[in-house]
Amino acid sequence: MENFLLDGERLDDLHRNNYKIIQNPKYFCFGIDAVLLSSFARASVNEVVLDLCTGNGIIPLLVHAKTNAKTLYGLEIQKELCNMAERTVKYNNLGEQIKIIEGDLKELSTFFKNSSIDVITVNPPYSNDLSGVKNSLSEKSIARHEILCTLEDVVEKSSRVLKSGGRFYMVHRPQRLVDIMYLLRKYKLEPKTIRLVQPFINKEPNMVLVEAIKCAKPMLKVLNTLIVYNQDNSFTDEVYKIYYE
Amino acid sequence: MENFLLDGERLDDLHRNNYKIIQNPKYFCFGIDAVLLSSFARASVNEVVLDLCTGNGIIPLLVHAKTNAKTLYGLEIQKELCNMAERTVKYNNLGEQIKIIEGDLKELSTFFKNSSIDVITVNPPYSNDLSGVKNSLSEKSIARHEILCTLEDVVEKSSRVLKSGGRFYMVHRPQRLVDIMYLLRKYKLEPKTIRLVQPFINKEPNMVLVEAIKCAKPMLKVLNTLIVYNQDNSFTDEVYKIYYE
Repeated sequence: MENFLLDGERLDDLHRNNYKIIQNPKYFCFGIDAVLLSSFARASVNEVVLDLCTGNGIIPLLVHAKTNAKTLYGLEIQKELCNMAERTVKYNNLGEQIKIIEGDLKELSTFFKNSSIDVITVNPPYSNDLSGVKNSLSEKSIARHEILCTLEDVVEKSSRVLKSGGRFYMVHRPQRLVDIMYLLRKYKLEPKTIRLVQPFINKEPNMVLVEAIKCAKPMLKVLNTLIVYNQDNSFTDEVYKIYYE
Repeated sequence: MENFLLDGERLDDLHRNNYKIIQNPKYFCFGIDAVLLSSFARASVNEVVLDLCTGNGIIPLLVHAKTNAKTLYGLEIQKELCNMAERTVKYNNLGEQIKIIEGDLKELSTFFKNSSIDVITVNPPYSNDLSGVKNSLSEKSIARHEILCTLEDVVEKSSRVLKSGGRFYMVHRPQRLVDIMYLLRKYKLEPKTIRLVQPFINKEPNMVLVEAIKCAKPMLKVLNTLIVYNQDNSFTDEVYKIYYE
């Protein structure tokens, strides 16, 4: 396997179907955000799933492992990450099910017809504070800041390609919750379920999971807040199960 | 004191400055919602505080006890509740500080000038599901359902009378969080802080506390979720302190 990996890359075990993933700490390693989003998202075998800002393809991989969905796409704008994701797909023999597309989500309509997708997942760049990174085109800056796409781009383009009744799953920062809800409703993706994620019971949440449904009626379900760590820094039972069961 | 109370009324201790409050289980008794909102709201001594949908005046009473604010108004549309609130104010010798106004918040401009209020608090009717109560004008129906005013009325009218930089505090149901955030932003009351309240650690939240600031820039702070009860049904330390310390 050694010569399958490029310089600086490593192969990590996903504890799911023996799947492995190629990572490179210099460019992109998946975090708990991707794991929680994949666990939060629902998809059935025959639904078409599209992951935006897919990075090294972690979310399609985990969603496939969980749902056995037969058709998943991962869209990524950065060439190096697409290349990593494609080699991961190949390594796991998932070329039939998971297609990686190199492209810009602002041009999503050139890749997918309107109302053609059942489920969208997305772990987008979180920060709209571009002070200091505006001119940075490093892989990490692009993945973390709204340099190449904004939250509004993500929501608007997603709404267009989702079917009516299609589901949109996103993980984001709680600081952006007003923007998220405002934009989702503006583009007819009605937020239906959210869940806050706190590192500890006495700490502020640092993630929010959102499910929105295209053209649904208003009525939000807020789940109980997910706590990641016990006071002794071990995973809580619920998070342990998400990772390992 | 007996003949001070009307039929069916009782006098309850607020555990604050020896204040007592008149309640009537048939019409209105305050709940934990009012207690948590009063604790969540900030006001300083010289700020003008207006409580909408004040009911029996519980929130002005608790906010005054906490902040010593010198000028508080409570607006209530139901005559019987205004009467109870006024007798409570008198009983506690707070006639100088707390004024109860019988009136409709949809006509708020007839009582207060635009941009004249520093702080608004409100525990509005929660439910916009009017099936079954549309023709009910019972005191309880009016306090619980959007029969005489909607959430949009509350937000729009509040925004008008609040000063720029003025603060708006509301307790509501998490199911309405999208409506809340959407409407607040629409009327230039930017949500700045929210806190979910769960009865138990493993139960979904049933309240949300919201602070919005008129004309503020976007950036939401989400506090850690407040848990009300321990597993043995006793108050958690934080809620015990809010009630009794």
